[in-house]
Amino acid sequence: MDEFMQAAIDEARQGRREGGIPIGSVLVRGGQIVARGRNKRVQENNPIKHGEMDCLYNAGRQRTYRDTVLYTTLMPCFMCAGTIVQFKIPKVVVGESRTFGESQEFLESHGVEVEIVDLDECVQMMQEFIEAEPTLWNEDIMEL
Amino acid sequence: MDEFMQAAIDEARQGRREGGIPIGSVLVRGGQIVARGRNKRVQENNPIKHGEMDCLYNAGRQRTYRDTVLYTTLMPCFMCAGTIVQFKIPKVVVGESRTFGESQEFLESHGVEVEIVDLDECVQMMQEFIEAEPTLWNEDIMEL
Repeated sequence: MDEFMQAAIDEARQGRREGGIPIGSVLVRGGQIVARGRNKRVQENNPIKHGEMDCLYNAGRQRTYRDTVLYTTLMPCFMCAGTIVQFKIPKVVVGESRTFGESQEFLESHGVEVEIVDLDECVQMMQEFIEAEPTLWNEDIMEL
Repeated sequence: MDEFMQAAIDEARQGRREGGIPIGSVLVRGGQIVARGRNKRVQENNPIKHGEMDCLYNAGRQRTYRDTVLYTTLMPCFMCAGTIVQFKIPKVVVGESRTFGESQEFLESHGVEVEIVDLDECVQMMQEFIEAEPTLWNEDIMEL
């Protein structure tokens, strides 16, 4: 597997071990990881810290994102998709979009390249989590 | 002026006094302010803390946002607009959209009611800031 998607999956699994929601993300520039992040709704009691948001927070203030690629284990929600568009990140590589996938058209219509790797490992990680913690998942996607 | 927009402006002015970007926001439910926030890119060195995001962070984990209204001194960027859509906030009241305004169609197409108050006070606050700190403003809207 691509080392960057593997790093995003590692973040997701670390989040699950912490009692959190297993979604991870890494920001890459020139073949190097700039920052890593994972969903921290539970760990930090923070509703805006989805995996992609935590990664961009950890990256700090970047002069530009036009030369970056964002990897994420799950298709971004509209918060994270809006952030990708706003930050002018040109490409997002997505572990899977079977569990959640409504932002793809929005991203593509704003010129973001969306590559879906469609990994069974990512789907299984989410399915195991959703079966174990359905209320927490529904809180995270605002479907309570 | 509406007390909630006034509270958002107060947050924006507090941010400017701190050396930050003067954009403020409040979340309202049932005629009460649930949380206040302001852009903290400078104060916390944090690119994801726009005014609306800081407000939603300060509100903590809410069971639902369907009964809330978000006030903001400036038309939301796509990060904040995507968050409003994702969090299913039904209405946003905007101080002004002359300085920045590209997300209105996105919000409305996703069922969010957008009320633009169009206050000269908000426009002037932004113009004074942009004239004093053009690089910081361009960083915040990712136009460097």
